[in-house]
Amino acid sequence: MLSNHFQNGIETAKLVWSRLPSSDDVTEELESRMNGGGGAESLDYEVVENYVYREAQAKRSKLYNWYYAMLKWLFALLIGVGTALAAVFINLAVENFSGWKYAATFSIIQHSYFLGFLVYALFNLVLVLSSVYIVTQFAPAAAGSGIPEIKGYLNGVDTPGILLFRTLIGKIFGSIGSVGGGLALGKEGPLVHTGACIASLLAQGGSTKYHLSSSWLHPFESDRERRDLVTCGCAAGVAAAFRAPVGGVLFALEEVTSWWRSQLMWRVFFTSAIVAVAVRTAMTWCKSGKCGHFGSGGFIIWDISGGQEDYSFQELLPMAIIGIIGGLFGALFNQLTLYITSWRRSYLHKKGTNVKMIEVLVISLVTSIISFGLPLLRKCSPCPNSAINPDIDCPRPPGNDGNFVNFFCKADKEYNDLATIFFNTQDDAIRNLFSAKTFQEYSAQSLLTFLIMFYSLAVVTFGTAVPAGQFVPGIMIGSTYGRLVGMFVVKYYMKLNVDEGTYALLGAASFLGGSMRMTVSLCVIMVEITNNLKLLPLIMLVLLISKAVGDFFNEGLYEEQARLRGIPLLETRPKQCMRSMIAKEACQSQKIVYFPRVVKVAEVVFVLRSTKHNGFPVVDRGSGGQELVIGLMLRSHLLILLNSKIDFQNSPFPGDPRTVTSRHTFSDFVKPVSSQGLSIDNINLTDDEKEMYLDLAPFLNPCPYVVPEDMSLAKVYNLFRQLGLRHIFVVPRPSRVIGMITRKDLLFEENENSTAMELQTSVRAQAHRRSTRRYDHLDRPLLNNLLIRE
Amino acid sequence: MLSNHFQNGIETAKLVWSRLPSSDDVTEELESRMNGGGGAESLDYEVVENYVYREAQAKRSKLYNWYYAMLKWLFALLIGVGTALAAVFINLAVENFSGWKYAATFSIIQHSYFLGFLVYALFNLVLVLSSVYIVTQFAPAAAGSGIPEIKGYLNGVDTPGILLFRTLIGKIFGSIGSVGGGLALGKEGPLVHTGACIASLLAQGGSTKYHLSSSWLHPFESDRERRDLVTCGCAAGVAAAFRAPVGGVLFALEEVTSWWRSQLMWRVFFTSAIVAVAVRTAMTWCKSGKCGHFGSGGFIIWDISGGQEDYSFQELLPMAIIGIIGGLFGALFNQLTLYITSWRRSYLHKKGTNVKMIEVLVISLVTSIISFGLPLLRKCSPCPNSAINPDIDCPRPPGNDGNFVNFFCKADKEYNDLATIFFNTQDDAIRNLFSAKTFQEYSAQSLLTFLIMFYSLAVVTFGTAVPAGQFVPGIMIGSTYGRLVGMFVVKYYMKLNVDEGTYALLGAASFLGGSMRMTVSLCVIMVEITNNLKLLPLIMLVLLISKAVGDFFNEGLYEEQARLRGIPLLETRPKQCMRSMIAKEACQSQKIVYFPRVVKVAEVVFVLRSTKHNGFPVVDRGSGGQELVIGLMLRSHLLILLNSKIDFQNSPFPGDPRTVTSRHTFSDFVKPVSSQGLSIDNINLTDDEKEMYLDLAPFLNPCPYVVPEDMSLAKVYNLFRQLGLRHIFVVPRPSRVIGMITRKDLLFEENENSTAMELQTSVRAQAHRRSTRRYDHLDRPLLNNLLIRE
Repeated sequence: MLSNHFQNGIETAKLVWSRLPSSDDVTEELESRMNGGGGAESLDYEVVENYVYREAQAKRSKLYNWYYAMLKWLFALLIGVGTALAAVFINLAVENFSGWKYAATFSIIQHSYFLGFLVYALFNLVLVLSSVYIVTQFAPAAAGSGIPEIKGYLNGVDTPGILLFRTLIGKIFGSIGSVGGGLALGKEGPLVHTGACIASLLAQGGSTKYHLSSSWLHPFESDRERRDLVTCGCAAGVAAAFRAPVGGVLFALEEVTSWWRSQLMWRVFFTSAIVAVAVRTAMTWCKSGKCGHFGSGGFIIWDISGGQEDYSFQELLPMAIIGIIGGLFGALFNQLTLYITSWRRSYLHKKGTNVKMIEVLVISLVTSIISFGLPLLRKCSPCPNSAINPDIDCPRPPGNDGNFVNFFCKADKEYNDLATIFFNTQDDAIRNLFSAKTFQEYSAQSLLTFLIMFYSLAVVTFGTAVPAGQFVPGIMIGSTYGRLVGMFVVKYYMKLNVDEGTYALLGAASFLGGSMRMTVSLCVIMVEITNNLKLLPLIMLVLLISKAVGDFFNEGLYEEQARLRGIPLLETRPKQCMRSMIAKEACQSQKIVYFPRVVKVAEVVFVLRSTKHNGFPVVDRGSGGQELVIGLMLRSHLLILLNSKIDFQNSPFPGDPRTVTSRHTFSDFVKPVSSQGLSIDNINLTDDEKEMYLDLAPFLNPCPYVVPEDMSLAKVYNLFRQLGLRHIFVVPRPSRVIGMITRKDLLFEENENSTAMELQTSVRAQAHRRSTRRYDHLDRPLLNNLLIRE
Repeated sequence: MLSNHFQNGIETAKLVWSRLPSSDDVTEELESRMNGGGGAESLDYEVVENYVYREAQAKRSKLYNWYYAMLKWLFALLIGVGTALAAVFINLAVENFSGWKYAATFSIIQHSYFLGFLVYALFNLVLVLSSVYIVTQFAPAAAGSGIPEIKGYLNGVDTPGILLFRTLIGKIFGSIGSVGGGLALGKEGPLVHTGACIASLLAQGGSTKYHLSSSWLHPFESDRERRDLVTCGCAAGVAAAFRAPVGGVLFALEEVTSWWRSQLMWRVFFTSAIVAVAVRTAMTWCKSGKCGHFGSGGFIIWDISGGQEDYSFQELLPMAIIGIIGGLFGALFNQLTLYITSWRRSYLHKKGTNVKMIEVLVISLVTSIISFGLPLLRKCSPCPNSAINPDIDCPRPPGNDGNFVNFFCKADKEYNDLATIFFNTQDDAIRNLFSAKTFQEYSAQSLLTFLIMFYSLAVVTFGTAVPAGQFVPGIMIGSTYGRLVGMFVVKYYMKLNVDEGTYALLGAASFLGGSMRMTVSLCVIMVEITNNLKLLPLIMLVLLISKAVGDFFNEGLYEEQARLRGIPLLETRPKQCMRSMIAKEACQSQKIVYFPRVVKVAEVVFVLRSTKHNGFPVVDRGSGGQELVIGLMLRSHLLILLNSKIDFQNSPFPGDPRTVTSRHTFSDFVKPVSSQGLSIDNINLTDDEKEMYLDLAPFLNPCPYVVPEDMSLAKVYNLFRQLGLRHIFVVPRPSRVIGMITRKDLLFEENENSTAMELQTSVRAQAHRRSTRRYDHLDRPLLNNLLIRE
């Protein structure tokens, strides 16, 4: 009977692989991406509970579990400290480079503006070149903000190279170059990516390629744990970038993760707290003057606690207008960047890395010309009366931060308002735009010029081959039109307590809301960076409006970009058309390739070569002789078995599973993150080996989730999405129901100190009886039958 | 064949109902609670997609969907406004009652302290009596904080009466009495419940009993929508209670809900923002003096922006100690309240409502004696030197809020530090404890006395039959020992920038963390109520420690109380023992009762009478003649069918499903929230009716989720918990796999503006073809076969 069945299985396999659908190149690329590059099958939240895994679980002692729990917290601590240090390092470097640059330029323009421009532009070019060189030559995955890719990773799509050690290095040094070089981009998005890289590297115990791995970190090879750590890393990145620990937690929750567990919140929160403390410590150390130009600036906290404390109902109208403008400008930004990035990807970037480098250098040059040249064309304004405003230092001494820059001004008591925001680091420019009690510092003309120019630069710079965040450019754009609206309000409402800086802040919130479409997290981040809780309801209002307006036109920036990069994110809700479809219809085009339990190696090789499937049902005959699906075998696990060869056997009959655990540990089956994994083409087998057999039973996932063939596809989608699955079997409708599980069947109480629990004693007793049984039997009943049979 | 099959089904049913397990009273009560009182089967997040539901869905126009989406936002707005108004009303009443009470007492004690005490105690007794009378006679579900019950409701357990209109009224007026009466409890927990009640009443279109319902709100009878609205209501409650909108969102997310969808976050956020604006408007209106004693107090914002700005590393040790104390005291509080509540429930409260009322009145009297009497025993302290501290008003004028109460002091320039915190409203007492720059206002002896007394009072008051929150008492207790630690730090560290008020705040955070075990939400609430962002990392640190210490001993306050009240919450993670169990083992004790597709009414009545099951599989023969499970029929739906009688038919053959939709709308099958629902004993049927037949096909849930019999119970638990299910069918292992659903099968793109989408065209085209098909066929393939057969 056995050999008969075995033949049967092979025949089934043969029957189907000949009828595979043809696929063109693009399909192939995306399919392989979606399935994680042919080897990333374990990239789901569902742990493949095969025999080896369960044996490994059973062997774990209490002490081990304790050590494991401690390790999680230790890692959260290390992620926090690591991300904070990376953030401090980036900020320190950027502030110092910028400081030197502006100091040099300002001292040279005392003599010659042309020479000053040359030095300024050259400085920028060199910094930008260093950034684009690192990214194009060394770490291509470090380009852009990285947030769409991380979002994809946490959704279940592994973009190759996104979490490698070289990407981390590229991100850190690339950010320094691109931000220090004065491009219209920020360092906040890259910091989120940096945090994620640090987390991922810790989770896999260091980089294998650079021999930095350590063996005692092996427990974290479970993919779920890795993803949890990456989530912590994202929160740490935001917490470090904005010094906004609560905002970081909310960002990770709202924007990045796809599956959230409440236990995780506590750990993410801890990581953020560590970042806050670590950054604060580093800042205290720098206050002693050891950090060069890195003083109060760098870390973006734009304290506007001196600003407007109250608001009148009349002001709600201009604030709503800011929200609408934010929604429109944000949606436009998303659309323009989408077009430009799409054009870049299809034409420009196909021409090689040199084109990418030249592109960035040209943009850098244009940015230098605009930011240096435009203020030259602007007429200087006289300083405000110092008798009325004794606090104002106008013009400010060269080389210092602050408002009222004297740039190309003839008279002594004059300042150039365009240079104050344009010829400055972005952090300082924002601080100047947000600054309270500086009425009419800027002319509407200057702000409008800056808005148009900077908006265009931000759109063009987006998508180039350098690490680039969109937070700070967004804040720049938003605060400019916000301040413009504020100026009109001051002019027409004639209220003394209206402050232009507050409107600038609301503008910044509105643009970010209109572009990124975050809500709670963005609101908290804005409150934390401005250190002013009283503005919370106003920020909420503006965000509500700008997000609603933006949603009317297109999707959020990260979703658009993820889609463009071919990262297919599964949304939380099923599409409308799924409601009228059934499960069977979704998988009609596929042909299922079965394996029998014991399979010839040659057959496995043939199937893996000729199909692109990543999972194969395994069938066998049950104790009654009827055919049964005994589990799901993953392509990646088959490749590992073929590669190691130690499980090959001569007999076509099932082997003893107990010997398997001596040959394998569970970590053998875990794919290193963000690599391509094994491919069937890299595995060489001799003809003798191909004639041997492989018993799949210990390696298969014995119970994948199943759905009946006529279940609504929307329901299937929910199941798939909520549990973070990779494969669902669609099976025929059952002929009978063995039992029904309801809430009370799932309530096992562990302690008995309350009255309500008495009634569960019977269930609990049963549970106890059963849980002790696990050591009598080798395995689950069905598989057990199969395993013991010979 | 049909009648044969029909017979067969009846026989199956007969076969099993004779072998039901016996059940004692307690089991029965809890079982019926778990299943929602016999009729609350729709209390899951899974919509029962029966034929009637799907037809109703198909009929909906685009305009309707738009109206529906608008309605959701309108309701969010109404919930926000309603909760804010309720909060303002409660605060206004409490502040005015307290104001009158203290004004009267203070004016009388100028003449006689004994008379003053009598007036004070009587005032309290009357207020407390009003509260306990309302609760015991009119709205028993309004007792306590209501948070465990709401948490249970959102987890899937419907406590009867918890969301009724009378509960709302009882909660509002009861809170006024109990808080105004000076008991050791707060009004914040009840406000969360109030918000939830308002939301639930809106969702079901008003109260049916009081004829306040409206017909155009019918769409919200879906249980999932209701639950979403209740979540909004909880957030609104916290936002209103603490004026902490972000804290409200996080509270709803972290503490209350069990299933969170990211779309919901946006709506919850909107509700909170509305609350913030509405409360602010009301406060502005009150500032004009129209609200009597309701001035700056009432709403708890204890601004400590004047306090400590910075901290040194030395201070981290005392802060960590505060965290440890908080964990210990919090865990002790949970344990003590658990014992006392358990004792109360089993002995005291069984003796009737009079005992409940007497109990509360005795506690009120004791509270009055302690809060009035203890300060009398305390020696007054001389006022601080007014030359050094010119801001301090000591002693404060009678009837005003503030520090330094002159109570039973002989000399003029003296104050009674114990009266400052004890003989005061709790809000003012906390403000005094948090107050910055008032070094050595309190003696250690007074604080210690207060701590012990108030802790005992809070433990005893918890669980009585009045609306009672634990936030404010927790803050009182915590800030007392926090200030004690702060005093020691000031004394021994000799630092000038250390502020006792900051330590009081940390103490408050630590006690709440140690008792309620919330993390992120509590942190944000503390920051929002104190209006000081700089203390965030310190609050985080203290919360981390106190939660960790508390978790070592027991569960959080709400979990303990929920368990005590017999609300079986499903935790997010499966228990350890489930890993070694399989699905079949969990349902071994049950006997499944099947129904055939067309069933005799008498049989249905008999089965419903003789079993307690809430779901019944329905079997029929497929087109090939083999037996198939065609769906799940709920007890509650059967009861509705029996009650309406319009679906009874004379023929034992399947009817035409198209006629069903003329007799039923989907809303017929939705149970009103928090009521007992129908019972089989209330349905009277004549003998003729009992001889008729019922075709179940249009009313059954055609595709409940299924799991194979040997799936690990931990996996089943995840499925059940993540999707918020009520029933899972355990079925035999499938014999074949029809298809496999992977990520790419679930990606349908709706717009085509990017390159990555091209490849999905084929899938999309298919999807389109299929979705149009729905109007050609009546129903899903399988059921279709069955329905068309006659």
